[in-house]
Amino acid sequence: MLIHRSEIQIEWGDCDPFGIVFFPRYFEYFDACTNALFHRALGIKKPELLTRYKIAGIPLVHASCNFVVPSSFGDVVQVDSRVTEWGKSSFQVQHRLYRGEVLAVEGIEKRVWTIRNSDGPRKFSGVAIPEDVKAKFA
Amino acid sequence: MLIHRSEIQIEWGDCDPFGIVFFPRYFEYFDACTNALFHRALGIKKPELLTRYKIAGIPLVHASCNFVVPSSFGDVVQVDSRVTEWGKSSFQVQHRLYRGEVLAVEGIEKRVWTIRNSDGPRKFSGVAIPEDVKAKFA
Amino acid sequence: MLIHRSEIQIEWGDCDPFGIVFFPRYFEYFDACTNALFHRALGIKKPELLTRYKIAGIPLVHASCNFVVPSSFGDVVQVDSRVTEWGKSSFQVQHRLYRGEVLAVEGIEKRVWTIRNSDGPRKFSGVAIPEDVKAKFA
Amino acid sequence: MLIHRSEIQIEWGDCDPFGIVFFPRYFEYFDACTNALFHRALGIKKPELLTRYKIAGIPLVHASCNFVVPSSFGDVVQVDSRVTEWGKSSFQVQHRLYRGEVLAVEGIEKRVWTIRNSDGPRKFSGVAIPEDVKAKFA
Repeated sequence: MLIHRSEIQIEWGDCDPFGIVFFPRYFEYFDACTNALFHRALGIKKPELLTRYKIAGIPLVHASCNFVVPSSFGDVVQVDSRVTEWGKSSFQVQHRLYRGEVLAVEGIEKRVWTIRNSDGPRKFSGVAIPEDVKAKFA
Repeated sequence: MLIHRSEIQIEWGDCDPFGIVFFPRYFEYFDACTNALFHRALGIKKPELLTRYKIAGIPLVHASCNFVVPSSFGDVVQVDSRVTEWGKSSFQVQHRLYRGEVLAVEGIEKRVWTIRNSDGPRKFSGVAIPEDVKAKFA
Repeated sequence: MLIHRSEIQIEWGDCDPFGIVFFPRYFEYFDACTNALFHRALGIKKPELLTRYKIAGIPLVHASCNFVVPSSFGDVVQVDSRVTEWGKSSFQVQHRLYRGEVLAVEGIEKRVWTIRNSDGPRKFSGVAIPEDVKAKFA
Repeated sequence: MLIHRSEIQIEWGDCDPFGIVFFPRYFEYFDACTNALFHRALGIKKPELLTRYKIAGIPLVHASCNFVVPSSFGDVVQVDSRVTEWGKSSFQVQHRLYRGEVLAVEGIEKRVWTIRNSDGPRKFSGVAIPEDVKAKFA
């Protein structure tokens, strides 16, 4: 199974008055990590992913995180991302963020392979994920 | 049980190239809703909350969301927030975001009543939540 | 000249480890204030603005801010926004953010009335702002 | 004069419904670039910068950007950052963001070398920048 490791520099602007990462930023990091994982697996960036497969995006139906150890500005962390489950039109991505050897945050995303039915932001639906896409993550 | 309703205007800058709310923004909304709920329950804003109870913050150990229906810029949504569980030093907040009558997003936060043990962003630990705090949410 | 006043609650997540608003957030606030000003002037929200006038957006060519007095979480501030200059296809918006009586931040945006020439995010150009739009801000 | 080049991956979540970078994100990028420039010049990260020089931060009194050419998700851009002016307690940083050979965004920050006078987020003032700091940027 393909695992992609991303390195992230924690920035001053990611941290809150407590001095630690404001938790929604982890979800932003993980969104970028999912895109990096797809880039790695398919060899194309997100704009070409959308064009080639005629999808509008891979929006989420669920996201969750466990925050085990806080990080702060100046830290450099590593995130290991992998697809842990493929459904017909949905899939699950797991992210493990490490500060050194320590598992600091663990996140799960459930996403849908989505087309736009017609013009406008609200008309879309899930479609079957191509088998050749799934195969690239093996 | 105290339920606080917040109204949120979805902004252009909250939305992604798909035209819908970029999902980490929901976690930001809900963080603000938790602060509004505490303000409502205790009659004091977050700066005074931290000072009066000598805590450094109420950071999260877990957050999750189910994204049922997307929202887009121009929408005005309502969020109902309540504490659904009190532990010794931790508590759980539930947020239900409605677009009109429709439940669009449901979120859960698990947070800890936290003091700073010494100087620096990393030295802190949970302490018992005062009973008078809990009572205000009844 | 139409002046629109917006009220903004400064949130915990808008503030940095210094305890004050992380400055890019002011630009986010002001973007929302410009949209609110247009809503007030034209009586329609941004999605309908884009549809009715067949534009893709009103992106910026310039933005600047003077940060006079810092604000922090828990503060409620007021922003007075107005169009201070109309060109053929561009216009300038001024934002004055007050904490109580004190002018805390002053911002300027220069924006362009923009259409998409063809598909894709990069092909667009400025077009003449309709006179009826300008008239609504008088 | 020291010039630090940062490379930035434009992320999906940085872009707006127009499909281009939401402009406040450029100010976030540039804030991180200033921190990277200081890291490069002084050989220490921001947490140690604050500790060693006993400052609370280097907050801004002014920021401005000219947005010449838009960027979109999937782009990789380069930012050249340098200090263009040293005052007694303030300094100016210039950022030039390039997409390939094209100057896409130019930004200016004016910042102050700042100490906290007493407890609380609002009591601080500028102090003289140490000469050894300035010398490291020559």
